[in-house]
Amino acid sequence: MSGPEIVLGQNNYGKSEIRLFKVKRDTDVHEVWDLDVRVSLEGDFDAAHYEGDNSRLLATDTMRNTVYALARDHLTGSIEKFGRALVDHFLEAGPTVTACRVEITQFRWRRIEVNGQPHDHSFVRERGERKAQVWGDIGGERRVEAGIDDVYVLKTTNSGWEGFYRERFTTLPETNDRVLATVVTAKWEYDTIDADFDRVWNGVLRSILETLTDHYSPSVQNTLYRMGKAVLEEFPEIERIWYSFPNVHHIVYDLDRFGIENDGEILHATHDPYGQIEGWVERRA
Amino acid sequence: MSGPEIVLGQNNYGKSEIRLFKVKRDTDVHEVWDLDVRVSLEGDFDAAHYEGDNSRLLATDTMRNTVYALARDHLTGSIEKFGRALVDHFLEAGPTVTACRVEITQFRWRRIEVNGQPHDHSFVRERGERKAQVWGDIGGERRVEAGIDDVYVLKTTNSGWEGFYRERFTTLPETNDRVLATVVTAKWEYDTIDADFDRVWNGVLRSILETLTDHYSPSVQNTLYRMGKAVLEEFPEIERIWYSFPNVHHIVYDLDRFGIENDGEILHATHDPYGQIEGWVERRA
Amino acid sequence: MSGPEIVLGQNNYGKSEIRLFKVKRDTDVHEVWDLDVRVSLEGDFDAAHYEGDNSRLLATDTMRNTVYALARDHLTGSIEKFGRALVDHFLEAGPTVTACRVEITQFRWRRIEVNGQPHDHSFVRERGERKAQVWGDIGGERRVEAGIDDVYVLKTTNSGWEGFYRERFTTLPETNDRVLATVVTAKWEYDTIDADFDRVWNGVLRSILETLTDHYSPSVQNTLYRMGKAVLEEFPEIERIWYSFPNVHHIVYDLDRFGIENDGEILHATHDPYGQIEGWVERRA
Amino acid sequence: MSGPEIVLGQNNYGKSEIRLFKVKRDTDVHEVWDLDVRVSLEGDFDAAHYEGDNSRLLATDTMRNTVYALARDHLTGSIEKFGRALVDHFLEAGPTVTACRVEITQFRWRRIEVNGQPHDHSFVRERGERKAQVWGDIGGERRVEAGIDDVYVLKTTNSGWEGFYRERFTTLPETNDRVLATVVTAKWEYDTIDADFDRVWNGVLRSILETLTDHYSPSVQNTLYRMGKAVLEEFPEIERIWYSFPNVHHIVYDLDRFGIENDGEILHATHDPYGQIEGWVERRA
Repeated sequence: MSGPEIVLGQNNYGKSEIRLFKVKRDTDVHEVWDLDVRVSLEGDFDAAHYEGDNSRLLATDTMRNTVYALARDHLTGSIEKFGRALVDHFLEAGPTVTACRVEITQFRWRRIEVNGQPHDHSFVRERGERKAQVWGDIGGERRVEAGIDDVYVLKTTNSGWEGFYRERFTTLPETNDRVLATVVTAKWEYDTIDADFDRVWNGVLRSILETLTDHYSPSVQNTLYRMGKAVLEEFPEIERIWYSFPNVHHIVYDLDRFGIENDGEILHATHDPYGQIEGWVERRA
Repeated sequence: MSGPEIVLGQNNYGKSEIRLFKVKRDTDVHEVWDLDVRVSLEGDFDAAHYEGDNSRLLATDTMRNTVYALARDHLTGSIEKFGRALVDHFLEAGPTVTACRVEITQFRWRRIEVNGQPHDHSFVRERGERKAQVWGDIGGERRVEAGIDDVYVLKTTNSGWEGFYRERFTTLPETNDRVLATVVTAKWEYDTIDADFDRVWNGVLRSILETLTDHYSPSVQNTLYRMGKAVLEEFPEIERIWYSFPNVHHIVYDLDRFGIENDGEILHATHDPYGQIEGWVERRA
Repeated sequence: MSGPEIVLGQNNYGKSEIRLFKVKRDTDVHEVWDLDVRVSLEGDFDAAHYEGDNSRLLATDTMRNTVYALARDHLTGSIEKFGRALVDHFLEAGPTVTACRVEITQFRWRRIEVNGQPHDHSFVRERGERKAQVWGDIGGERRVEAGIDDVYVLKTTNSGWEGFYRERFTTLPETNDRVLATVVTAKWEYDTIDADFDRVWNGVLRSILETLTDHYSPSVQNTLYRMGKAVLEEFPEIERIWYSFPNVHHIVYDLDRFGIENDGEILHATHDPYGQIEGWVERRA
Repeated sequence: MSGPEIVLGQNNYGKSEIRLFKVKRDTDVHEVWDLDVRVSLEGDFDAAHYEGDNSRLLATDTMRNTVYALARDHLTGSIEKFGRALVDHFLEAGPTVTACRVEITQFRWRRIEVNGQPHDHSFVRERGERKAQVWGDIGGERRVEAGIDDVYVLKTTNSGWEGFYRERFTTLPETNDRVLATVVTAKWEYDTIDADFDRVWNGVLRSILETLTDHYSPSVQNTLYRMGKAVLEEFPEIERIWYSFPNVHHIVYDLDRFGIENDGEILHATHDPYGQIEGWVERRA
């Protein structure tokens, strides 16, 4: 028998936290892209692992150079399209690469307003990150995902938590009026590699915010499903969407002890511990 | 000679990260306050330190209870006013307290818009924190400070760095067109304990953003002075203002090596290391 | 047609950051467990998502209570065994639960030494976290994984990066003497649910540290494979092991410009950007 | 009257997060210094602030170059001595500099042990940071401070909290047996600029750990004073020492509700909120 008994399994390597900033400055009204890019490659890297033979490894420093170099011509619209160009490139560039994944986080800047007018070249960072992920292989397959991170929302009423299962270790009282707060993490898969990605991303964010407001929430689970359904009904190019919702608890502080009435007005906001509700919402097969 | 040779010097104690959330819900249009409160007390705490006699120490758990209890009646407007009420209370509550400092961070929530209308009870967290600090002593003195934290701004042109001092270790080229980016930390002292704190805070933030846009910046230092001057000219109730500005460097990436032109379009954004420029701007004595 | 067109896909929910601290204090020599526990459940939760019917949901608050309650009798040895007890419990407790995952992070405390003797009940926190994950389903399957996080290691020589693939965007020079630095994240799968988990965990950590020292490293990839091989050869109960290694770059600072020689002595340590090398090492099938 | 009505007050500027790594490699047994350096300068920088005249500003990029350049000859022993050399240099280098502060954080690496022997050139990062700060002015004054950060300690017994002041908002029960846990932040001032800084730093850390173990702690305050007294008695070159101690609460979890006895064994560790106890211990004037 030849070859080692202990072998390399699934593996990848790449470059993380490539902090690319681009300014479009061909007119007085500048546009900016502020990105954190991660590139990772899969392929036949056995020689490097087993024998220390690096001749088929593209250096991660080269990946960094490439991301900046390709930004000149290919980062002109959505980060999804830039991700596609990077994937196409790296599938060619690495001599034994079979698949490539590019993950991009876009930090969002909005124009500063002066006298009600958006400024040409001055910006303030917004909370909430836009994500994109493009995956491709040398067989020509491509997949595009997008996402939202760190959008913190809450509603102060029209939410409850009742009728849940009770057993030996259950002490939580029921409530039909609580604060519901969560930090939205969402990702969704496209059924195409060529959608109007900017329009859809902004639409998904708007849809999530609106759905939060439009119903009595009996549970985070129910709101999660509603948020998925609303997105899928509005955007046919999305195949399925996943949410991860920490349930940031706001606990009514016991002021009765001091003879002070507290009708859900004074609360303790705590991150530790938190509920976590996750799931896909998708089209029936 | 009496007493120890090794003695207690300046000291204080208190409670940090009291996460208070209040909902004003007497009408359908709810208002929220989302705060992180820190209380610290100074006074004669020698017996506790030297002898383990706790009889004159207010427990920090009691401070926590108190912040929630007083929020009911005293957190109805600005966090500065709530801070004053807490200081007044703790100067009375601790048997040997001589001075009290209350530091409050307010996390900012804006209403979610649905069809262009701000929602009654649904909110999304904004980036940028509001700060307040109230200090008082048993002699009746009170001082109020306010601040801004984590407002990240940039301009993509109309900023340079030229004509600086050059010596043996200077290698940086001069530029009259660079990206200027900083995360604003500001604090200011009021000459009163009873200003229209909400109006002023919003005005200071607006002034800082506008000043960023209104001049060619030859240095962070010059822009810092301009931002201070603009605030002091508009708000007579502010005595002096301090800024701390990290200079978040955006470095033009060298694409010449690849035969690619890069006229200030493709940059590397890095936090490590960063310049740091700090200073007070104040009224001439 | 029955049922909705837009449906719930894979989903789970649970409680995160349950911060459990246990002291074994039946003798003067105390032992401590300091844990962060996450519980997540899978099952038939359709009614909650579609109809807001919570009657088959175990509250996440109940999960928290349960973790503390079961710690009394079941957290007496390894966190892997505690994880198994929790999984067994939750598969019974939730009325429609089909699978359960328990993830535990153990923060490590070592005894303070006084005059060379380990103290009975005083501890100092060590860097580096121990991880365990137990998964089980109602069919009786159980899987146990363990892991290491945040162990930061480096070697100042006996490491290089040469002979890598060169193309248009490659500018990095070759080196046969560099600093190699990485923050170890490892996880491994057991082929049993009843190993001597404490002994193995400590052995894996020791093996990783020793392997770092025992060879010239031509690449992170080669060192990764060697670290996997060493662990699998020593511990037959481990089926396969995965590493994720950020390559924390230490770049020789250019002092030639100042007429100062720098023979690999003065370096810039940077996290931004970093290489990332990941892979499984496993037994041949 | 001449000059502006609104003027520059106290100000400084400099470079932060200069990540310097040095390897002493003249013998096979390598030594490493892993530092984060911050330089800040005070002086007459009016022209830059008022007029945009940078001609008297040393660029912060020059400061960075300088730190690396001076490390060659001056970073050969303690970080305090390196800080002194930097201060001496920058007081000369900036044309209108009047004072300079250098703050250094040293990340601690210990040698990996192989078969009980410390390795020549392989290291693992320890928890706990060493700090130094040197301040100097052109009048020749110099001051040296040192510090400790992020050393997390706890004792599981021999600590209580009783006899404290009780009033309307006091609900906390008394206890004579609790877990005491804190993350040590300490800083101390030397009465000299030329002590055996390495020996003293290690001695202070040892003293703090030993003092934690050697008494019943009736309060964090009393333990703080004892830790200060022990250090000052052992190290005559230290003038005074300051501690900041978060009281990381470990709360006995209520298991009575489930008919489970909990005699201080099962606790909830929480950071939110925390007590904070701070103070100087010093020699009687």
